[in-house]
Amino acid sequence: MAKDEAKELLSQVSDWELVEEEGKLAIRKRFKFGTYLDGVEFINRVAKIAEEEGHHPDIYLGWRRVTVNLMTHAIGGLSQNDFILAAKIDNLQRERERNRVK
Amino acid sequence: MAKDEAKELLSQVSDWELVEEEGKLAIRKRFKFGTYLDGVEFINRVAKIAEEEGHHPDIYLGWRRVTVNLMTHAIGGLSQNDFILAAKIDNLQRERERNRVK
Repeated sequence: MAKDEAKELLSQVSDWELVEEEGKLAIRKRFKFGTYLDGVEFINRVAKIAEEEGHHPDIYLGWRRVTVNLMTHAIGGLSQNDFILAAKIDNLQRERERNRVK
Repeated sequence: MAKDEAKELLSQVSDWELVEEEGKLAIRKRFKFGTYLDGVEFINRVAKIAEEEGHHPDIYLGWRRVTVNLMTHAIGGLSQNDFILAAKIDNLQRERERNRVK
């Protein structure tokens, strides 16, 4: 997918940024958590969806933060699958926030 | 801890490498797995120990691989705690391998 198309799809997901790594396009989002283990729990939920989709993001876990990096390695760039998974991860985050408010 | 001391302690753990990031010492180890979810399961086990030790590593999850990065952020370098946690993570890995052989 070309950069222009990626930029358009980017507006349909929440707070993902377009990045370029070694000339390859990817999208990335940072998430913040109250504790380290909340971040780990989030990774488990992302991994479950990733497994269902057959599409596996790179994930970086730090102190109370998680960064998810999406790219379609087979094509060395972005595909529609990346944006679908991004939207599902956004949903996870919304669910978390809804549960916290209750 | 100075670099010389770190190098000595490094010989007491298994396959960790000394790295320098922005002038700060850390130790790093890469682990390989049969599946993405095996890597996620490993992260859960590392996180459980990290929580017990009150010492939280940065962890990078990729496709069938996990990289663990240890540093004592409070001192901006390595402390004995990093090597203790490294040894415990080595134990986890040994347990995994023992279970696989059975």
